Amino acid sequence: MNSKQSGRRRFLKKGGAALVGMAVGGIRPARGQTTEPPIPPEGFRPVGERSRFVKTARIPVRPRSPHSFTPQQDSVGIITPAALHFMASHGHIPPDIDPQEHRLLIHGLVDRPMILTLEEMKRFPSVSRIHFVECAGNSSPNDRSRWVAETIQQTHGFTSCSEWTGVLLSVLLKEAGVQSGASWLLAEGAEEGKHTKSIPLEKAMDDVLVAYGQNGEPVRPEQGFPLRLVVAGWEGVNNVKWLRRIKVTDQPYMTKSESSGYTSLRLDGKARWFNFELGPKSVLTFPAPGGRPLSGRGFYEITGLAWSGGAAVRRVEVSTDGGRTWKDAQLQEPIHRIAHTRFRFNWNWDGEETVLQSRCTDDRGQVQPTLAEFCKVLGISLDYIKTTTNNVSRFNATYPWRVSRDGSVHNALFS
Amino acid sequence: MNSKQSGRRRFLKKGGAALVGMAVGGIRPARGQTTEPPIPPEGFRPVGERSRFVKTARIPVRPRSPHSFTPQQDSVGIITPAALHFMASHGHIPPDIDPQEHRLLIHGLVDRPMILTLEEMKRFPSVSRIHFVECAGNSSPNDRSRWVAETIQQTHGFTSCSEWTGVLLSVLLKEAGVQSGASWLLAEGAEEGKHTKSIPLEKAMDDVLVAYGQNGEPVRPEQGFPLRLVVAGWEGVNNVKWLRRIKVTDQPYMTKSESSGYTSLRLDGKARWFNFELGPKSVLTFPAPGGRPLSGRGFYEITGLAWSGGAAVRRVEVSTDGGRTWKDAQLQEPIHRIAHTRFRFNWNWDGEETVLQSRCTDDRGQVQPTLAEFCKVLGISLDYIKTTTNNVSRFNATYPWRVSRDGSVHNALFS
Repeated sequence: MNSKQSGRRRFLKKGGAALVGMAVGGIRPARGQTTEPPIPPEGFRPVGERSRFVKTARIPVRPRSPHSFTPQQDSVGIITPAALHFMASHGHIPPDIDPQEHRLLIHGLVDRPMILTLEEMKRFPSVSRIHFVECAGNSSPNDRSRWVAETIQQTHGFTSCSEWTGVLLSVLLKEAGVQSGASWLLAEGAEEGKHTKSIPLEKAMDDVLVAYGQNGEPVRPEQGFPLRLVVAGWEGVNNVKWLRRIKVTDQPYMTKSESSGYTSLRLDGKARWFNFELGPKSVLTFPAPGGRPLSGRGFYEITGLAWSGGAAVRRVEVSTDGGRTWKDAQLQEPIHRIAHTRFRFNWNWDGEETVLQSRCTDDRGQVQPTLAEFCKVLGISLDYIKTTTNNVSRFNATYPWRVSRDGSVHNALFS
Repeated sequence: MNSKQSGRRRFLKKGGAALVGMAVGGIRPARGQTTEPPIPPEGFRPVGERSRFVKTARIPVRPRSPHSFTPQQDSVGIITPAALHFMASHGHIPPDIDPQEHRLLIHGLVDRPMILTLEEMKRFPSVSRIHFVECAGNSSPNDRSRWVAETIQQTHGFTSCSEWTGVLLSVLLKEAGVQSGASWLLAEGAEEGKHTKSIPLEKAMDDVLVAYGQNGEPVRPEQGFPLRLVVAGWEGVNNVKWLRRIKVTDQPYMTKSESSGYTSLRLDGKARWFNFELGPKSVLTFPAPGGRPLSGRGFYEITGLAWSGGAAVRRVEVSTDGGRTWKDAQLQEPIHRIAHTRFRFNWNWDGEETVLQSRCTDDRGQVQPTLAEFCKVLGISLDYIKTTTNNVSRFNATYPWRVSRDGSVHNALFS
């Protein structure tokens, strides 16, 4: 009974071109439907809050930046609380959008241009999927303009995982009627800077989601309230937030993000454009720099997160001896495709200095590379990656943490 | 590599009786681990908040009650936001517990009594599982002392679903060493009323979780911060919150909850005690009374939640014609065992009055009963269930909503 099986193409009777410019009033309860809620006692919290003793929080990625990192050192399970989801925009604070006023325009190479209200969006068949969103700069070893990467929150704070609910973009595009010759689309946000991104139509017709729900509630302002794209497994920059426009086109638009911020410079001076899918990756969240230190030798459960941009995680191995030997970790089930996957590994620490790390293999057989392998694939040297101020994005190498004899934990990527 | 496979029995070197009374200091960052976070800009939110336009909220179950209902009419996906998780205690507001001061005592018929701090708890192997928690009174048709059941929030607001993280109680009990002859345990909370509940040891050694995490963050105060039991699929009253004591015993304790509040009176004047597992159940969350009404004939996606106390949901059927015919709904995958399962069903409304409902079948083959079947199994009449002021708990019959021609939606259980 999903949209593909039903073969339906027109969900809104009043859909199509006639919708353009149509104003839709607020939702009013029908007669007899409203029940005044009882008077609550003092201290009753209609919307709950965390304990005042809980202090974990996002931190800005650099002084006075609105962008923020998720505190991975405190993560448990696979869901990132919406309040702690990382925030990256393109320089702007989240707009304060009235959902009653918000519209999504779908136009360009379509038979029936549409302007949709949020309530109309909710008339379409929906899906919920647990997916991570990761910025291409997550764990980049060389963004020295941004931070001194001492803690896991600073190195790996640019990935988060939510249960997203919304409408498949393919459903909306079928409703609009994509014309022959169309091959790309341009997605545009409503924030001050109007972030835009070109996305191949093939991906849009596959699994891109126009999301209005996040972890069972409306998408949070920092994550794109009231509407955002979730472009499963692709670089975060594609996941356009505060979504207000989809233009179907026959070529990419070479927007600012595409032509400057998210290209990858090659050694020959040319640049790779349109990098999309994120590779297999993992990181230990405990022990980890910035988290609780070890308190002496004995048993510890090592734990972390693994994910891959086009697949499900099939295997995670952990090394507790600087990469000499590897053993399988236990994966939390059920495993969701293109989602954070929690792994756990029992370890008895002998109290000596050592280096811990993890390695992810996805169900396509892709294996997370070592730093040396990552450099080799890119045709760059270790010295280059250590010293360049060029952007090394999509960095997915295994990431080692050193445990010192005093129980402290430090970033050991370059040492 | 899970605890069963590893065969380990003693995770804490300093564990056992020596732990009793041991004070454990706060967690201090190790030398060199602290990085002062950068100064954020104005408006930066270290802990995010929802949009000011989002109003959905819990409501008290009766005037001046601290107990609250989840707004199911606004639910999407399977995760309940922690801030909207229903709250039921036994008459008390959540205690304000300092996690550094909190202790869990495990004693009674064990070889090594233990007092555990929260940090010690986190040393044990952990698991994360998505489970619902449901009060036995959820959807009870006759709790007239509590509400006029006009809206789905009032009828079905006593179930919520979270990703819970913590330690299997079996791991703690193995560490403590359960003595022969033990068959029950008593769990006790730290709130003012010290809610206590007897639980069979067999369940405790199976899948009971001592949870410190909820949806990726510490358990919320209303849900038991800093520690609670999650007794998968059993009546909510078993899921002791603010957990401070587990006593292993050779018999149930016949506590107040067991002997008064949660028994089920039979027609012969005797009562059933120790009801545990919750049956297969489902409800439509859209359309639903108290949610957005229908705005005229045409396409709608009907959606709802299904769950079962001892199994995974295998099938949900939807009827749009007052129960005459049923068709399969689509289930959101992957399906988690003993968890809310989202289902969706495409429907074209002809604009005429009709009755909608859903029916759940779990993977044990248990089918959600109709109201008539529910009465028959209990040996009670429909008139009895309509008029009695006795408690009819564990009510899991199919629950019909009437859609009127004006698009309003009403409870049709008794009409």
